[in-house]
Amino acid sequence: MIIVGERINSTRKTITRAMQEHDSEFILNEAQRQWDAGATYLDVNTAMMRSEESQTMTWVVELIQAEIPEALIAIDSANPAAIEAGFKVHKGRALLNSINMEKDRIKSVVPLIREFRPRVVALTIDDSGVTQEEEKRFELGVRLIELLMDNDVERDDIFIDPLIFPVSAELQAGNVSLNIMGRLKEAYSDVHMICGLSNISFGLPERKLINQVYMVMAMGRGLDGAIIDPLDRRLMANITTARTLLGQDKACRGFLKTYRSGGLKLEPNPAGV
Amino acid sequence: MIIVGERINSTRKTITRAMQEHDSEFILNEAQRQWDAGATYLDVNTAMMRSEESQTMTWVVELIQAEIPEALIAIDSANPAAIEAGFKVHKGRALLNSINMEKDRIKSVVPLIREFRPRVVALTIDDSGVTQEEEKRFELGVRLIELLMDNDVERDDIFIDPLIFPVSAELQAGNVSLNIMGRLKEAYSDVHMICGLSNISFGLPERKLINQVYMVMAMGRGLDGAIIDPLDRRLMANITTARTLLGQDKACRGFLKTYRSGGLKLEPNPAGV
Repeated sequence: MIIVGERINSTRKTITRAMQEHDSEFILNEAQRQWDAGATYLDVNTAMMRSEESQTMTWVVELIQAEIPEALIAIDSANPAAIEAGFKVHKGRALLNSINMEKDRIKSVVPLIREFRPRVVALTIDDSGVTQEEEKRFELGVRLIELLMDNDVERDDIFIDPLIFPVSAELQAGNVSLNIMGRLKEAYSDVHMICGLSNISFGLPERKLINQVYMVMAMGRGLDGAIIDPLDRRLMANITTARTLLGQDKACRGFLKTYRSGGLKLEPNPAGV
Repeated sequence: MIIVGERINSTRKTITRAMQEHDSEFILNEAQRQWDAGATYLDVNTAMMRSEESQTMTWVVELIQAEIPEALIAIDSANPAAIEAGFKVHKGRALLNSINMEKDRIKSVVPLIREFRPRVVALTIDDSGVTQEEEKRFELGVRLIELLMDNDVERDDIFIDPLIFPVSAELQAGNVSLNIMGRLKEAYSDVHMICGLSNISFGLPERKLINQVYMVMAMGRGLDGAIIDPLDRRLMANITTARTLLGQDKACRGFLKTYRSGGLKLEPNPAGV
């Protein structure tokens, strides 16, 4: 299971401020807490920095890797210059978040993938935009896998994000994404499935509960990557437990280790979840 | 989703005592709380009463239905005389818990099914005993469905229990039961899948957490019945949430109703789960 810690994201106001003011203490605190909580990658999204995106990406990537040398970064941008800036200073193999099937994106990002050889998150979107349709998104998943393999990306380095839509708006939204994951995983067992799952609960109360439950269900259908807040202790406990229940945890060692370190002792959050 | 409340079970010492002493207040309290928590059926297991099983079954079924006239009972016994005693006094359609493919069980129970027309839980066991093997249990599921249909039980009245084994003893135990459910549900979409899931967590700490997570995963693979303790509020909240995420809750009405009635406000239990 690959956990991408989502907290260093410029769509959060506190993060934009910290990026603008070069508040390294704030950024490093977010990085360290997510790393300690079990993140595999730390996502760095600089989109809201606009014209300053590239230099911000450089600054944040260097900042984090200087403090936590073993940390790997998910370079989260739609801006090829910012992506390149991140790759140039990153030590080890980064994760690119993300490519999709839009022609312009392919044209600008594939050369960077060929040059820097990151692992890659690929979203089931093309120039016709996002679609609720299962068949269309499944086909986009297939085309993305083929595109990346054609550009020498190994299957184990590909993470398909089938997109998640709010179940409050579309009754079958949860099922559709589960089916896409299940079908892609069946066709390409070595390719990873990843998602940012919080969209599923948009428009409903008790969003954490909904996300926690959907995470487990998706893992049962092949999800093995997640872009989440690793500081959500129940979400992380659910993931640990789900891995054990899916036969991914020999002799329940991971489960028991988490138990002994107190990771399964869950306090209620203020919302009671 | 069909919830069978498991608490009135003579393997619990407090229940055996109440049955022996005809402590109707104790039994009715267990019945009422489970009913109020959303049980569809109240399981009544009298096995530990041995020679007194039949008269105990009669007493408990009549006791509960006198107090809660709309309550339906799951007659939980391996003793044909006790099963018949329960059916004879039960008002409405009972649930039989359970039949399996053992020759003697078929011989003694099928005539009772034909006479009293209950809904039926069917366990994937035969005279060779229980098996960990997926293929064997899948085939037993198919044979049970065919046996019951041959005896005029409608598909919607059949609940296959694929059996659950502890993941602490067998790494693939969780996966195997998920696969059996998924395959049977694919072959017979109108037949229900049910299980008593607490066996999955045997031998591990934080059993409630494990059961709560496995429940959600199993629902994602077609489980639509569960023999559980409906007083476990998080388990029930997970079920409500999972139904919504699986497109079984139009306009999220069930979810929002449970939310408004406070059913999603979860207190930690003493173990922190």
